[in-house]
Amino acid sequence: MEVANKYVTLKTHIEGAPKESDFELKTSPLALSLDPSSDEIIVKNLYVSIDPYQLNRMKLYNSSQKMGAGLEGITLGKEIKAYGVAEVVASDNVEFEKGDVVVGFVTWAEYSKIRGNGMIRKLDPLGFPLSYHVGLFGYSGLAAYAGFFEICKPKQGEKVFVSAASGSVGNMVGQYAKLLGCYVVGCAGSKQKVELLKEKLGFDDAFNYKGETDLNSALKRYFPDGIDIYFDNVGAEMLEAAVANMNTYGRVAVCGATSEYTDPGKRAAPNMLDVIYKRIKIQGFLAWDHMDVFEDFISTTGNCLRSGQMLPLEDFSNGVETIPSAFVGLFRGDNIGKKMVKITED
Amino acid sequence: MEVANKYVTLKTHIEGAPKESDFELKTSPLALSLDPSSDEIIVKNLYVSIDPYQLNRMKLYNSSQKMGAGLEGITLGKEIKAYGVAEVVASDNVEFEKGDVVVGFVTWAEYSKIRGNGMIRKLDPLGFPLSYHVGLFGYSGLAAYAGFFEICKPKQGEKVFVSAASGSVGNMVGQYAKLLGCYVVGCAGSKQKVELLKEKLGFDDAFNYKGETDLNSALKRYFPDGIDIYFDNVGAEMLEAAVANMNTYGRVAVCGATSEYTDPGKRAAPNMLDVIYKRIKIQGFLAWDHMDVFEDFISTTGNCLRSGQMLPLEDFSNGVETIPSAFVGLFRGDNIGKKMVKITED
Repeated sequence: MEVANKYVTLKTHIEGAPKESDFELKTSPLALSLDPSSDEIIVKNLYVSIDPYQLNRMKLYNSSQKMGAGLEGITLGKEIKAYGVAEVVASDNVEFEKGDVVVGFVTWAEYSKIRGNGMIRKLDPLGFPLSYHVGLFGYSGLAAYAGFFEICKPKQGEKVFVSAASGSVGNMVGQYAKLLGCYVVGCAGSKQKVELLKEKLGFDDAFNYKGETDLNSALKRYFPDGIDIYFDNVGAEMLEAAVANMNTYGRVAVCGATSEYTDPGKRAAPNMLDVIYKRIKIQGFLAWDHMDVFEDFISTTGNCLRSGQMLPLEDFSNGVETIPSAFVGLFRGDNIGKKMVKITED
Repeated sequence: MEVANKYVTLKTHIEGAPKESDFELKTSPLALSLDPSSDEIIVKNLYVSIDPYQLNRMKLYNSSQKMGAGLEGITLGKEIKAYGVAEVVASDNVEFEKGDVVVGFVTWAEYSKIRGNGMIRKLDPLGFPLSYHVGLFGYSGLAAYAGFFEICKPKQGEKVFVSAASGSVGNMVGQYAKLLGCYVVGCAGSKQKVELLKEKLGFDDAFNYKGETDLNSALKRYFPDGIDIYFDNVGAEMLEAAVANMNTYGRVAVCGATSEYTDPGKRAAPNMLDVIYKRIKIQGFLAWDHMDVFEDFISTTGNCLRSGQMLPLEDFSNGVETIPSAFVGLFRGDNIGKKMVKITED
């Protein structure tokens, strides 16, 4: 049996904000059978994850894999690896059989052919919708959990600021911080998002950064007693303003820098005198370094979702052809919560 | 008995590089006797410490003690607190008696009147010259020791870069790193200093940053396998270049930012993509947070100085009237090693 497999490719390296025309939807015939001892599987994708970090893989300077350990460049015209949930349709790998639901690195495509290399595993949905395993129980959730608990080492009552707070990671950081008993303020890019953070997700306060002319004063207003923890998803001026408003022994977890992703000339220049005299720690991290807390993360998050102490925040588009617009939309702030593309009905 | 006490005061708040004319040497009569139950002591200063951080206390925005915890502003026209070694000449404090040699916070003066407030202690010279206790065994040495061992958590064989490497802190960081078996490169601002680092202090390599047009390329040359630890004393472009050349899990201890002290417009804007993907930690610290390692610091440093495994690097001026020029000289790179002013023959 053979299918016409639709997949998204990168037409040109991207500097600045991505455009839909940077991508090309291709169709190639794919035989749903495998060479014996190929060790491969073929999956039909159900949901694929749409994440800002992919932009860094699309840049010219990453085509040579310059970032090393953390970031593998995307090759023009080829399939693009992405996290997702899928169903096995053919397997030459002893660990998988046809019909298994799996989670891990697939591609932005209808079907993906994958090596049995530990980047994918069989999924126990734990009674939750499959989509939860793309974001909430995936690397977005793990980034929130590990970044907040492991990097920031929060204490009850501390004052926590989260940027891109209605995004896939930010909304969960805020919810974890509330569960711990922190004072949490988030910023986002629209009135609707701000309302959501305050009314639905339990943030103590939230503001629309687009309505602020001076971020430093804005943070002073929301944190009259200073910030203890800043969970940074955006970088640039927001990071500078957060550092200026931090308390002694403040911690910054640098999860993302979306403001800087689309404009390499835009860089945070935090005041080093603040960093020294307030003994601030600014630490970059990647979720996949923290697999040691994965079990705790899943059990805590699962329990809180079941009890209603945490709310899921998901944002879907439908069909492989919507991947480019879904991705481009991330950088315009179109999404609310975890952005995914639903490829096939599960 | 009364003396004519000479002391240095600040005439005007400083923005930018300090000038000798920013200071005024005053003389006031001082009775060498104390009110009963004043709890005070009067000391005759032997050596006072000359440190770059004092500049941050001299700035207008610090006159209101804005930096809080870490940094107390200096009041115009008043005596300026500084670390030093002194001899007690009068005491109303039960802990001290006339003739005691003490170390701690005195003032940039011939004589200082001090409250018995725990900022000063009796000194056991441990068989070393008294001057050693101003810098090597004082906060400069502790900053080097705690910043390197506690903040950077170095491992044998790691690649260490130190800026202002012939300065009071930097030279000791480099020597500690060599003792641990690290590969150490320092940068400094003259050929003479570079020679000293390589020939006398055992640095694996050193370079004159003034001779480099592109710091990024310079560091690539000196660290073809990347930097694991950067001990930052200068901030600005050097910090950016170090982050760009760091390895995964690199650590930056931010001890000082002298390039930024004299020019508030000059700020490091490290690439946050490097910080994230290489999981870099940038951490500010102050020596006095690390009193818990003080004993280890003194015993390690003392043993290494006795055995000749570490060399002392000290730089003296003579007489209270040389304090302004000694201080101004710090920012021109005049000093080699710990800068002190010898006030009185010990």
